[in-house]
Amino acid sequence: MEEISPGLENVYIKYTDLTFIDGNKGIMRYRGYDVNELAEKSSFEEASYLLLFGNIPSKEELKDFKNKISENLALPPYIHEIIKNAPENADALGIMQTALSALSETYINYQWKRDNDLKLIPKILGNTLSIVSNIYRIKNKLPIKDPVFDKNYATTFLKACFDKDVGEERSMAMDSALILYMDHEIPASTTSAIVTASTLSDMYSSLTSAIAALRGPLHGGAAESAYKQFEEIGYPDNVETWFNKNILQGKKRLVGFGHRVYRTYDPRLKTFKKYADELAETENQKKMLEIAKKLEGLGVKNFGSKGIYTNTDFYSGLVFNEIGFPLYMFTTLFGLSRISGILAHIMEYVETQERLIRPRAIYKGPGEKKYMQVD
Amino acid sequence: MEEISPGLENVYIKYTDLTFIDGNKGIMRYRGYDVNELAEKSSFEEASYLLLFGNIPSKEELKDFKNKISENLALPPYIHEIIKNAPENADALGIMQTALSALSETYINYQWKRDNDLKLIPKILGNTLSIVSNIYRIKNKLPIKDPVFDKNYATTFLKACFDKDVGEERSMAMDSALILYMDHEIPASTTSAIVTASTLSDMYSSLTSAIAALRGPLHGGAAESAYKQFEEIGYPDNVETWFNKNILQGKKRLVGFGHRVYRTYDPRLKTFKKYADELAETENQKKMLEIAKKLEGLGVKNFGSKGIYTNTDFYSGLVFNEIGFPLYMFTTLFGLSRISGILAHIMEYVETQERLIRPRAIYKGPGEKKYMQVD
Repeated sequence: MEEISPGLENVYIKYTDLTFIDGNKGIMRYRGYDVNELAEKSSFEEASYLLLFGNIPSKEELKDFKNKISENLALPPYIHEIIKNAPENADALGIMQTALSALSETYINYQWKRDNDLKLIPKILGNTLSIVSNIYRIKNKLPIKDPVFDKNYATTFLKACFDKDVGEERSMAMDSALILYMDHEIPASTTSAIVTASTLSDMYSSLTSAIAALRGPLHGGAAESAYKQFEEIGYPDNVETWFNKNILQGKKRLVGFGHRVYRTYDPRLKTFKKYADELAETENQKKMLEIAKKLEGLGVKNFGSKGIYTNTDFYSGLVFNEIGFPLYMFTTLFGLSRISGILAHIMEYVETQERLIRPRAIYKGPGEKKYMQVD
Repeated sequence: MEEISPGLENVYIKYTDLTFIDGNKGIMRYRGYDVNELAEKSSFEEASYLLLFGNIPSKEELKDFKNKISENLALPPYIHEIIKNAPENADALGIMQTALSALSETYINYQWKRDNDLKLIPKILGNTLSIVSNIYRIKNKLPIKDPVFDKNYATTFLKACFDKDVGEERSMAMDSALILYMDHEIPASTTSAIVTASTLSDMYSSLTSAIAALRGPLHGGAAESAYKQFEEIGYPDNVETWFNKNILQGKKRLVGFGHRVYRTYDPRLKTFKKYADELAETENQKKMLEIAKKLEGLGVKNFGSKGIYTNTDFYSGLVFNEIGFPLYMFTTLFGLSRISGILAHIMEYVETQERLIRPRAIYKGPGEKKYMQVD
């Protein structure tokens, strides 16, 4: 008798050369390189190139890759319209989803071939930078503007959002965040993209599927929820009372703790925590950081023995806020970071083990019935 | 040692009370009712209600359901803009995908509850009718127009497209097509929607994911490809030569034959074949039908013993063409039909066995490497 695989938890959908995760030891690597080392020493462009092309780029390759991204920062006018015309209360990540979908419209029978795919990558990375920065701009009543490439992807993105230089340190934090969130094997968003790509639908449509999944509160929204949790606690002296009342008594789930694949600290945490520490500047930022640290202590003390530790989303929201982004942008920044990883996975799937994904359901409904119109 | 499940072929993702398929006997039922019987005797609204609400509606329930659909035929202006502003060469189904995505933008933390879900259904069904008819209109240089409800869903849809009554028989064929294509358990498109809904993303985003997958040539495009195959053959006397040269010599795959879940005739075929016969009117339609029948004969003769038989997509394109639709609309009509089925599956998944979908990949890449900047 067949059985279902709840959440596909024990199901292996593909082989991968991309991201290695050891959930017990808390290790994560892109093609063999430790993510924290990459976050510290490389750049978004380099790490993307590594994931997508397979090697750390030479100076020449990197220059060429950055040039090609910079040539694709302008969006067609109908995408501008989509961003501008979105309802006042539209979800930022939802607008990104729609813009990616709209860019897919001209791809009919996209030919998946390594050459075609690699050519599209800088276009997609340029487009998404421009989409996300313009979503931020529209939400802040700033006019739509094509970004101008400046130094690197992270700096270009921040200037495109804020119309000013926010300083080297914030730029580096953005760069690291983009790298740390770039890939995480195959969570729901990447899985949705792989299912879509398995029909040989195009790359933009596959990304659209991924973003649609990322928008769910059980997936991409964790950084935002963790930050809201700190806001709800309100002040450092309230942490223990709040924790006892809500978490220990089982009224609420501790957000930013535990992860399906980790039984220890999320390895990406330490870099986010470092930046959260370094960039806290305003009174409110320092207060939120203090709340987070106290809450983390209580969480680890109470749940660590069960293999439930802090995950990345616990601190990433603080960093995004310290860089200058409001709460409603957190998940969209996550989405922007994840583009390279999703692309790398769908290319790997189609190029190495393409097979239309078609699982089954087990029928438990009624037997044969005779149709009769009611009344 | 873990192994991958290619294409998730032997993986059961959920239980279902919706669609029963016996691939060996060629039987397909919605909640116990034979699809061909439903196609012949019920209506799109009735069959949708059956799948989504769980029972054949009473007269009162049906009237109320139709009223609610008719109240949701007007689209917000920003959706009109998306349809109007789409590039000249945009894929019709791609525009549908973008419009559904845009409608998702205002759903933030959508609360999945049976009451909320059921309330949204007529809205979504009204919206999609309006989206698809207006895509057809724009492609045909007709102005955007809110459809006006007339008799039933199929008739309303055809009038909204063509601005005229195309007759009872075509209306019935459209109605039957909508019913026959309404659900097919969990192909890639529905799977993509389920993965998306498993994160508790909203219903419109889940539909967006599904359409993104449907656009792949290995999935939704089959009716279009089958029709193009008839066009390529060109005239009935060429069928045998073409078949011997292309199919028997392995140069091409016979489109519209074989299906992952069937080892015999696709049960939906007979109703489509009946309409293809009845509605063929022009010289060209009669010619295409003759080509199809001859080709089917050769296909079954050569491949039937291997369990490879004609599937629905072999004849559905002929029917869509006879109703009055051009080739580029076929997959979009399929998408329109499938909305109810996708909604029924995601509701069933979230309401009865919600679990975040998070499969794994098996890492086969390089071991630990030390980062070093190149050059």
